[in-house]
Amino acid sequence: MDMQPHLDICLSPALLHLYNTKDTVVVIIDIFRATSTITAALANGATAVIPVSSVKECVDAGMLNPGVLTAGERDGHIAPGLQYGNSPSAFPASFVKGKTVALTTTNGTRLMNMVQGAACIIAGSFMNLTAVCDFLAAKGKHVVLACSSWKDRVNLEDTLFAGAVAARIGHAFTVHSDSVFMATSLWKECCTYPSLFEYLKNATHFHRLSGYGLETDLRLCATVDLYNVVPVLKDGILIAEK
Amino acid sequence: MDMQPHLDICLSPALLHLYNTKDTVVVIIDIFRATSTITAALANGATAVIPVSSVKECVDAGMLNPGVLTAGERDGHIAPGLQYGNSPSAFPASFVKGKTVALTTTNGTRLMNMVQGAACIIAGSFMNLTAVCDFLAAKGKHVVLACSSWKDRVNLEDTLFAGAVAARIGHAFTVHSDSVFMATSLWKECCTYPSLFEYLKNATHFHRLSGYGLETDLRLCATVDLYNVVPVLKDGILIAEK
Repeated sequence: MDMQPHLDICLSPALLHLYNTKDTVVVIIDIFRATSTITAALANGATAVIPVSSVKECVDAGMLNPGVLTAGERDGHIAPGLQYGNSPSAFPASFVKGKTVALTTTNGTRLMNMVQGAACIIAGSFMNLTAVCDFLAAKGKHVVLACSSWKDRVNLEDTLFAGAVAARIGHAFTVHSDSVFMATSLWKECCTYPSLFEYLKNATHFHRLSGYGLETDLRLCATVDLYNVVPVLKDGILIAEK
Repeated sequence: MDMQPHLDICLSPALLHLYNTKDTVVVIIDIFRATSTITAALANGATAVIPVSSVKECVDAGMLNPGVLTAGERDGHIAPGLQYGNSPSAFPASFVKGKTVALTTTNGTRLMNMVQGAACIIAGSFMNLTAVCDFLAAKGKHVVLACSSWKDRVNLEDTLFAGAVAARIGHAFTVHSDSVFMATSLWKECCTYPSLFEYLKNATHFHRLSGYGLETDLRLCATVDLYNVVPVLKDGILIAEK
């Protein structure tokens, strides 16, 4: 009998219905940049991050409680009505400590609100890769690594992170999935490059954001293990599990 | 202005709606085994292959015209009511020449019937890799390489074939797609293996079919350029373009 928990990778929200997320730890992945920003904000002492799907919900969250910072971008600019962008560098400790951030993004926060029945939903990024791996290994439950992708199109950066996690902890899980093989192959290829940052230049989204002048952000998002924190979704709010 | 046609890869039928297939050449890919079998049957002289979605439609096609051979499998066995399996070795020239085959498969024929508005729909397999590449290069139209996958789950063998095509002819197209980068990376990895067959052992579907005792079939499906034929869908029927 198969006693090990399963690990699988979902490459797009449009494929999420194919995966059983019941009693599973689901890792939401949106490397550029939602889950990187969430990780940075919580690591820098934010009390909570509220992921909301639309700009309007984000504005409303700020109106309801003027202490809540509102953040989110559309097409690389701070969305009208919001105070801050979706940048992992926008929330240093000096600014965000003790505060709550309502965040809306194009892909990541949407996926976070799509997952049903999971034992636990966490946010993963290269910034907290080891923390995420340790968390998954300690839980010992089934795992679905869920890529936010770009408007449902499979993307390189999210798949790559999923592959990095699978490469590290897959041996402790039952894996019967071509997505896992494929993502792990990409991670192996990445490891032959001079750096993660160099490899991520192959991603179409890299060039989209680079075109917005966000190269500093991209470098931050490509920094492995900058923070030792796991953002955990509880009652619709992300808090740090350290 | 961008004058080159575009090339993209759709990794699952569940993502097909994200792609514009209008005035595009769509390559249906179902390596294990629909498009390999279709290629073999037409190369061996079958007049036509009629792809149908269900076993019932296949049985009906045979009833309507007793000259039509009916073929299809479910779970590795000839489906009840049909005469032949879905095996590229089941249709040698001595048997299939001048005949019409109605074929139903789990994934490939379904996808073939899903595509809307394409300029042209063809079937691709490793068995006719070069013929497909030459066809696409000669047409000079937009291309979508459409993987049949396994019940909508992304699979290695179809993605790999898409990557092989992109690696060969991508330079003549505008490519702005992470799926293409990812599939091409897998193909590069495959080229470091002793053989395509060895690499395909990484696919979960390989083991499913191998478990059914179909290793001879798998070897055939992994034989590059066995045939110089392109199956083209015209009015719902596949015929050979040589």
